[in-house]
Amino acid sequence: MAKSKISLIQELLSQTTASPFKNIISDNQEYVFTGSHKLLLEGTDFDLVYTPLNHLGYKAALSAFGPLYAKGFTPHSLSVRIGMSKKIGITQLEELWKGISAALKEHSAEYIELDLSSSLTGLTISLSSQGKQKRETFVQHNSCKSGDLLCLTGSLGAAYLGLQILEREKRLFEERGVQPQLEKYKPILRAFLNPELDKTLPDLMTSAGIFPSEGDFVINGLADSVKSICGRNNLGAKIFMNRIPVFSAAMEVAEELNIDPMTAAMNGGEDYRILFAIPQSQYEAVQKELPQLDIVGHLCDISAGTKFITPDGSELELKAQAWNETE
Amino acid sequence: MAKSKISLIQELLSQTTASPFKNIISDNQEYVFTGSHKLLLEGTDFDLVYTPLNHLGYKAALSAFGPLYAKGFTPHSLSVRIGMSKKIGITQLEELWKGISAALKEHSAEYIELDLSSSLTGLTISLSSQGKQKRETFVQHNSCKSGDLLCLTGSLGAAYLGLQILEREKRLFEERGVQPQLEKYKPILRAFLNPELDKTLPDLMTSAGIFPSEGDFVINGLADSVKSICGRNNLGAKIFMNRIPVFSAAMEVAEELNIDPMTAAMNGGEDYRILFAIPQSQYEAVQKELPQLDIVGHLCDISAGTKFITPDGSELELKAQAWNETE
Repeated sequence: MAKSKISLIQELLSQTTASPFKNIISDNQEYVFTGSHKLLLEGTDFDLVYTPLNHLGYKAALSAFGPLYAKGFTPHSLSVRIGMSKKIGITQLEELWKGISAALKEHSAEYIELDLSSSLTGLTISLSSQGKQKRETFVQHNSCKSGDLLCLTGSLGAAYLGLQILEREKRLFEERGVQPQLEKYKPILRAFLNPELDKTLPDLMTSAGIFPSEGDFVINGLADSVKSICGRNNLGAKIFMNRIPVFSAAMEVAEELNIDPMTAAMNGGEDYRILFAIPQSQYEAVQKELPQLDIVGHLCDISAGTKFITPDGSELELKAQAWNETE
Repeated sequence: MAKSKISLIQELLSQTTASPFKNIISDNQEYVFTGSHKLLLEGTDFDLVYTPLNHLGYKAALSAFGPLYAKGFTPHSLSVRIGMSKKIGITQLEELWKGISAALKEHSAEYIELDLSSSLTGLTISLSSQGKQKRETFVQHNSCKSGDLLCLTGSLGAAYLGLQILEREKRLFEERGVQPQLEKYKPILRAFLNPELDKTLPDLMTSAGIFPSEGDFVINGLADSVKSICGRNNLGAKIFMNRIPVFSAAMEVAEELNIDPMTAAMNGGEDYRILFAIPQSQYEAVQKELPQLDIVGHLCDISAGTKFITPDGSELELKAQAWNETE
């Protein structure tokens, strides 16, 4: 590097709307705070062949904000540590930073911290975020119980299918030099490369008097989030197949790729949605005030297990990769 | 893996004294909280050839706790994300975890979170920690000013020299098959592989009525910490060479390696010490109540720059790697 690390960091920080932080202390009695922590590794979590760096930066920041929203918090600060491989020069770093900055601005995060180191292997991005919530509206999560509704903030499966298209086109290019034809896949590629996270939801819910009893960021498929909520709270769940919102443009692509769209939704990942548990008593408020939420099932006693109910009423065991006994 | 990721994580978590956390919220009005974030990359931050995994885990946790102590906080929670390379099987992971668990126990951290993913390249460890402090004794840092004393919690340089010995022995073994002879280097190897972080300091300081105005975890050499404190607060500093505590056993090794021990102290790194700024008015209290602190210099107006004063009174520019204009 021609510049010192410190001056490069200062330059990047000056490009954001968030203030740099070094000694951020949660001493504001008006708010309660929570944290979220994420590690993204090249080759495992992203592929630079088809992921533009500004999209990667944006998605990385969102993946640290998502778990905050899932707990009813809004982003307060973000700390980013980047291990830069040889492929990543200052220009590439600036692209990555553009995406991170866009997410900071869009989600009104107030403070940002950055540190850079060199990575002998792949690009590595570690993120630690803090979220805040007004103390007066704060409801302790983990208070959910059998009967609570499981509500989802958007459709599923498109991002996973987008990823499969990009993987296929990469293979075709590498093996046979075929130029990628991506025009017709735009909507599902957008779902993968440019996911959206609804920042208005915490306020909308508070105004509507809807207080989730639990929440999980849907990043590894819906099944994983259902299992996570059940695992944390010692509960079971029923998810109804005909209630799962599958992204409409995904159906055709799923057929082309010979992938079951329901599998993409349940186990695909990269959806950037939130699964909330909401007390049954708030059913009417959800229907009336938050029609954008899909009620996909409900929590049960642990003895009922975690089940996936098909339209004909059959109960299947809900499967999620990290939760299975053998992988 | 024969076990699912979830059951492996649960098994590891059950081995610590800290409770697992999923939804940890800083809602305790008795305390204020702060965070620290660290990314450790194989090849850049550690070398598995000569770093036993339990030592690596212990050091990794301490490197996340150090910045908390530097701000006057004690560890509350730790979140660890590990990218496991192919070399790291369950046995190796358990060794790494032993070290992390030991640090958690020793530093009375109450909550722990763990996530595992696979790394196509090297072992990657990301840590995000939270520290707490009683609201009644909390003093906002960044209140330091010209004249404040710069006080150090222990000797410097040994860890860096220990690292150089290990690097040399690794080279000799790889190039000529020479078996490492490490017996005589024990004290300095211990400084590198098994650093100590004094957990009693925040309480000792509070009891003695000593309230630092700033603090920095000394992990990249003393010069870097001095520059960090000056940079954050728009101040200059003077550091006196004859006040720098160099680890006694290090002198001989420094000569053997042809390394200036003062360079090892100022720029070596891996010391796991803390540099506090303490108001001048507390000078006598420091001398009397905390003789383990070395007063190595003081803060100045920014116009004075950051200077290193030799015993004959010459003023040299303080140099720290990340802060120089060209590297």
